[in-house]
Amino acid sequence: MKTIFSKISVFLFISSLVFHQAFGQEAIFSNQDITSPEIHDDKSVTFRFFAPTADSVKVTGDFLPTIKKETQWGMVDAPTHADLTKDKNGLWSFTSDPLMPELYNYSFIVDGVSNTDPNNPFLIRDVASVTNIFIVGGKQADLYKVNDVPHGTVSRIWYNSPGLKMDRRLTVYTPPNYESNKTTTYPVLYLLHGAGGDEEAWIELGRTSQIMDNLIAQGKAKPMIVVMPNANIIQDAAPGQGNKGYYKPQFMVPGSMNGTYEETFMDIISFVESNYRVKKQKEFRAIAGLSMGGFHSLHISRYFPNTFDYIGLFSAAIMPRDGSESKVYSNFEESLNTQKTNGYKLYWIAIGKTDFLYDANMEFIKLLDSIEMPYEYMESEGGHIWRNWRIYLSQFVPRLF
Amino acid sequence: MKTIFSKISVFLFISSLVFHQAFGQEAIFSNQDITSPEIHDDKSVTFRFFAPTADSVKVTGDFLPTIKKETQWGMVDAPTHADLTKDKNGLWSFTSDPLMPELYNYSFIVDGVSNTDPNNPFLIRDVASVTNIFIVGGKQADLYKVNDVPHGTVSRIWYNSPGLKMDRRLTVYTPPNYESNKTTTYPVLYLLHGAGGDEEAWIELGRTSQIMDNLIAQGKAKPMIVVMPNANIIQDAAPGQGNKGYYKPQFMVPGSMNGTYEETFMDIISFVESNYRVKKQKEFRAIAGLSMGGFHSLHISRYFPNTFDYIGLFSAAIMPRDGSESKVYSNFEESLNTQKTNGYKLYWIAIGKTDFLYDANMEFIKLLDSIEMPYEYMESEGGHIWRNWRIYLSQFVPRLF
Repeated sequence: MKTIFSKISVFLFISSLVFHQAFGQEAIFSNQDITSPEIHDDKSVTFRFFAPTADSVKVTGDFLPTIKKETQWGMVDAPTHADLTKDKNGLWSFTSDPLMPELYNYSFIVDGVSNTDPNNPFLIRDVASVTNIFIVGGKQADLYKVNDVPHGTVSRIWYNSPGLKMDRRLTVYTPPNYESNKTTTYPVLYLLHGAGGDEEAWIELGRTSQIMDNLIAQGKAKPMIVVMPNANIIQDAAPGQGNKGYYKPQFMVPGSMNGTYEETFMDIISFVESNYRVKKQKEFRAIAGLSMGGFHSLHISRYFPNTFDYIGLFSAAIMPRDGSESKVYSNFEESLNTQKTNGYKLYWIAIGKTDFLYDANMEFIKLLDSIEMPYEYMESEGGHIWRNWRIYLSQFVPRLF
Repeated sequence: MKTIFSKISVFLFISSLVFHQAFGQEAIFSNQDITSPEIHDDKSVTFRFFAPTADSVKVTGDFLPTIKKETQWGMVDAPTHADLTKDKNGLWSFTSDPLMPELYNYSFIVDGVSNTDPNNPFLIRDVASVTNIFIVGGKQADLYKVNDVPHGTVSRIWYNSPGLKMDRRLTVYTPPNYESNKTTTYPVLYLLHGAGGDEEAWIELGRTSQIMDNLIAQGKAKPMIVVMPNANIIQDAAPGQGNKGYYKPQFMVPGSMNGTYEETFMDIISFVESNYRVKKQKEFRAIAGLSMGGFHSLHISRYFPNTFDYIGLFSAAIMPRDGSESKVYSNFEESLNTQKTNGYKLYWIAIGKTDFLYDANMEFIKLLDSIEMPYEYMESEGGHIWRNWRIYLSQFVPRLF
């Protein structure tokens, strides 16, 4: 027995060695016994990177302050970076100030070249970029953690879209005990991503399942199903998950804002209502989305003006109606009026003060005022960022059903 | 309308700029309009990396030949690397020989520091290491692609384990049309990971959902449910997905081979049989696993010797029975004899010729011969690697049910 156990140990050691050789690590930190990031009790965070021959290691990410930068496209919130310092073993480190609770991302810049953190295997893709992440707990960030509460199920499921003539992938959150409560029916929130996103965006960057589990456990949200579709009409699935294989995701996927998605959205609702135990009345349907998904929520809810009792526009990519030639805008004011007349329980608009879409949202609000269409408006700090969309979701969901 | 559309364009441009600033890219390739990896018609692959100030860029990965390397722990299959060459713009590149069909991984080494490929957002975590991946199509590798065939559903679902006293996370594949065929019941394959793995291993590294979709579409496998549990008894879920938050995964998780997992495995079967539409007879249950999961499959199937008609040991971490003091070995031969007497349809053992567990598997086979316990044996090239486990799964599944 001892022989084989020591063989196992050798196996583990060798495998470990092979892994690290593959990663080009060597000598003193060949096993990369390094903790990075390390979150301290005071919520400062230490980042570490082993690079004995490097001349410069920096860290950048949304935990650092941004600076306003003048570019040819106007003022931009540009990320800053911080310099790591090297010790005698070639281990570089930097400790941040105490950070506010949040889910943050970061990456290293080693002699001018961007790098991920080899000591942190947790990464998130945002469009075509992959960065490491970490969570500083407390306040709203505790909603983003996996806590000891009952957990819902997250499924990637394919539905047939007759309108788009293909099978397409959906992410679906069902609440805790959905499987065992075999006769219970649930309300549904349709939750839509922005440009460059897909059916992975809300569940990964948006922490939807964690937010839902935690709000439901706290009694702040009703048990509900959350359906996160793919809104890029030429895709069957997220990049890498569909029949186009692996390719570099692009920010703007053609055709996604021309009305076709709106026209074919009932394919999704039909599938969900045939395959999940859902309540099929207007009062049990909500639709919300961020940026392009806010645009979609606005238009889908007015295309089908007797379908949703709850509408959420998060930093919505709202277009003013005048001058548009796209079919998506036809009967714009008329259909909004119909939606108003039919009634709904909540039309919720949220945007950050420095969002570049702020003015467009103000224009839209003026239009709503002019036709006396009721809405609630929530203004936050900051701009067009995931931090805000997680907060908006956490504020919107308790208002539903 | 034009105004807001150009605002949107500016937004996309700026966001793109901000992303790339965050990634420390600059000047000519500031938008990283680089394709890497590029798979050519002849199945050679070009890797590209932009690093104008670097002195050396190498690529390493399992698409390159390995070399035998003498270490203090014996001979090791060590990965090799290839040098990229720099053009006048600072873009480095390397083109491989034509490659055999396979799912490959790779990473760059820039001036001695390991790096992921910023132009390839597709990565897989193996224990604590994250590498980029790509697929060279053809032969068995076509099973690893998402093809235009009906797709099953992949769910992450939590079950309660009274034995381990916690809620724990499972990955479950249900076959195409599981949701719409509301009265059909299905057979179940329980598919177990190796040391350092978790409930993400088979679905990510093992390409289980792609293999199942494709084999079912080809009529080579029966529609079945595949349940991929977490076998690390102190974890509720994969690192980053459970209540311990983000931490660096370790190769050997304490307690996972001491018999406790085997004793509590019925918690999983009970959950699956109460919550999915499954056929609940022995002839409709299979269990298989790789490495430590082969160990678990061996022991679980003899602990419950009237439960599984199909058993698969892939590169199993088989311990010889003699000399063991662990409770997992008690009544070893006796229970194997019971399992033999009860009968089963397939006991399938597969291992690579250069696997360090080869001798232990030969010893086990001798034992089976000595007690006249029937099995089938399949020997492949290569060692203790995912490439083999994907192939073993693709060969095992058509034999089931």
